[in-house]
Amino acid sequence: MAGVLLTDLYELTMLQAYFVQGMNGNAVFECFVRKLPPQRNFLIAAGLEQVLEYLVGLHFSSEELDWLRESHRFRPEFVDSLAGLTFTGDVDAMPEGTVFFADEPILRVTAPLREAQLVESRILNLLHYETLIASKAVRSVLAAPDAQLVDFGLRRAHGAEAGLLSARASYLAGFAGTATVEAGRRFGIPIYGTMAHSYVQAHGDEASAFEHFARTQPENAVLLIDTYDTERAAHKVVALAAKLATQGIAIKGVRIDSGDLGEHARRVRTILDAAGLTALTIFASGNLDEHRVQDLVASKAPIDGFGIGTRMNTSADAPFLDCAYKLEEYEGRPRRKRSEGKATWPGRKQVYRCYDAAGLSTGDVLALADDLIPGTPLLQPVLRGGRPLAQRPGLAAARDRVKAELARVPEALRSLRESTPYTVDVALSVRALASRLDAQE
Amino acid sequence: MAGVLLTDLYELTMLQAYFVQGMNGNAVFECFVRKLPPQRNFLIAAGLEQVLEYLVGLHFSSEELDWLRESHRFRPEFVDSLAGLTFTGDVDAMPEGTVFFADEPILRVTAPLREAQLVESRILNLLHYETLIASKAVRSVLAAPDAQLVDFGLRRAHGAEAGLLSARASYLAGFAGTATVEAGRRFGIPIYGTMAHSYVQAHGDEASAFEHFARTQPENAVLLIDTYDTERAAHKVVALAAKLATQGIAIKGVRIDSGDLGEHARRVRTILDAAGLTALTIFASGNLDEHRVQDLVASKAPIDGFGIGTRMNTSADAPFLDCAYKLEEYEGRPRRKRSEGKATWPGRKQVYRCYDAAGLSTGDVLALADDLIPGTPLLQPVLRGGRPLAQRPGLAAARDRVKAELARVPEALRSLRESTPYTVDVALSVRALASRLDAQE
Repeated sequence: MAGVLLTDLYELTMLQAYFVQGMNGNAVFECFVRKLPPQRNFLIAAGLEQVLEYLVGLHFSSEELDWLRESHRFRPEFVDSLAGLTFTGDVDAMPEGTVFFADEPILRVTAPLREAQLVESRILNLLHYETLIASKAVRSVLAAPDAQLVDFGLRRAHGAEAGLLSARASYLAGFAGTATVEAGRRFGIPIYGTMAHSYVQAHGDEASAFEHFARTQPENAVLLIDTYDTERAAHKVVALAAKLATQGIAIKGVRIDSGDLGEHARRVRTILDAAGLTALTIFASGNLDEHRVQDLVASKAPIDGFGIGTRMNTSADAPFLDCAYKLEEYEGRPRRKRSEGKATWPGRKQVYRCYDAAGLSTGDVLALADDLIPGTPLLQPVLRGGRPLAQRPGLAAARDRVKAELARVPEALRSLRESTPYTVDVALSVRALASRLDAQE
Repeated sequence: MAGVLLTDLYELTMLQAYFVQGMNGNAVFECFVRKLPPQRNFLIAAGLEQVLEYLVGLHFSSEELDWLRESHRFRPEFVDSLAGLTFTGDVDAMPEGTVFFADEPILRVTAPLREAQLVESRILNLLHYETLIASKAVRSVLAAPDAQLVDFGLRRAHGAEAGLLSARASYLAGFAGTATVEAGRRFGIPIYGTMAHSYVQAHGDEASAFEHFARTQPENAVLLIDTYDTERAAHKVVALAAKLATQGIAIKGVRIDSGDLGEHARRVRTILDAAGLTALTIFASGNLDEHRVQDLVASKAPIDGFGIGTRMNTSADAPFLDCAYKLEEYEGRPRRKRSEGKATWPGRKQVYRCYDAAGLSTGDVLALADDLIPGTPLLQPVLRGGRPLAQRPGLAAARDRVKAELARVPEALRSLRESTPYTVDVALSVRALASRLDAQE
């Protein structure tokens, strides 16, 4: 979706400096989130698949090289050196769908310095967004585990890629599918759709709009009933269903998009049931997020599915994560950034997760990659020498992983409310290394 | 950046229903924002250029048609009918950079129903995001009109397109430029860059990192001085500047990215000035938004420029606008949606803006397009019969327009605080039409 110049200028400026200095030793960078937003008890790693596609395809096109040359910002011999650049390094990462916490690396890049530096901006751009959305969407899944949740948010997602990747990330988190057609085509995600108010409005009257739509979508039509008066429209659906039934056409469901969704759903359910239309489903949408969904579920509103859009696709209550991509080691020597409030844990690290007898996770340890620590290591090799390892799990596997992970996080973390934080211990080896580096400067 | 299938499934489902019914009369849709977020006193229209590119290029590729056929969701003859579809309609819109308010249409599509319906999702996706970001970014411009503001937010923008379009929208709003290289290539926006902490860390010591960088970027190097200790680093810059001066190399500036930015800037300025480096600029970044920038300006912190990222690119305090694309007229007959809390003003509309003797705008009138109303009409023709009109203003013109518009909005609206709302009167003609339509159903 975007070439190698989708990067910050300083990446190229630094690359040129490294080129001039002949610096290109082995570098280790790690991606992590410094701090969780108070509205999130845990995060879900996502976006790795897109990062790998990006790294495997990394190259400068001749148009991009020409543009760099003509910008007169760079030395010609440096631009020439970019012509053959590809990503030849290693990547270790948490599989997509893994639950993780603050300060835990979710991805580690080990590569010649220039390659590892160049890819910073786009790796963050991809990992940040999908992780943000998976971590938001999973909250609706927790709020309504039995309902059909559909991503409805393309129109207010932040651009084309956000539309596509939020469909992917929400499906990964447990949504049933998306309304975004291209996401269905590109990622194989189930797609869903109903009708718009404009469809009803374009027709002279609501009843004929419903009838035309149902006839062109036999078995599959979901009718939008709130354009004028929701309950009056429900009665029109009842009359239509009786008429179509004699011709073997069934209406699948109705959608309510405004007003008190729970109250309307109850009244509509009563109207439909009284006519024997118990199989006809009620779908709700309109300004929904996990809290409103939870309230509707708690009030036992007879709603079978929810269209969740804007607030999910923009992660509206926490629209960004404080993530970073930091140099942790260069030419075998650990590195530490000590900027105020932004100090990092140095060295090449691994995250170990411990479980109790019931299988619930009890805490993580942030350790050095070489430490011998009990627990399950979460970072796994995914790319070696620029080539993906064969056994890459797909989107379905990531979705399954989320389900399994949710069953293993402590109960308190599954609440929508802020819970007591999960324990992430920093191993003594890491602390000792940090102290040693601090003493050196 | 994305094909015609970047749309909601219901657009295609409705198109098929219209196809089956033979419905394709002339439809008028309007885009507007229902309500401004409390954090915005006005909005800035942006994204029109991308909408026009999309409409002019609209078509189904053979791969897209094949996929639709193979999805078995649609009738073959309907999919065939899409093969020749292009956008043949008209568009009227507020020029990019226009200040606007709630309920005011910023774009009107007049086209055969199927075309006008199909383009809903992507038009909103584009207009919403650029308008959101221009309206956010302009607040930093108001907070620091004399500083150099640079978009630093690619990494946490929501995907690739958000990175590119937020660079464009913030430049349109008055930013000096962006760090995103591809935005420079694609839109001709000035690009800026400094160095990352990793550059300093990869070197054995900070002083040699500074020296190497300055030598490869003579005249143009901005050194990041907060990796370890900001003031100690400033002294290293002083020593380096003296050394390089003898070789005719000047350092352009320093960047501070953490801690109390105002306090560090003051101390660093003192250190630099004491060494006679008065021309060396100080650039600040790190979690900035318009409020922090305004505070720094108010405290007279000696900061020449600001890198503003995440909070701008995600419009973090208001990450979406309540925008809509609604059918207002079909086959010459006005239409009105009456859903609870979401009723629309019907008919083909125009916005008229009135000014006082000093040139300040005093209020708008939302009228019917045919009304004779005093004031400047804001919607202008931009596309006729699917073809753009010749005199399309570019990005530079939009940027100039923002500057001119800011000079004409009432003083209170330019505050970062919530002001008393600007007056938008709904003309009697519009109200009467709404009443008439309500009485019909």
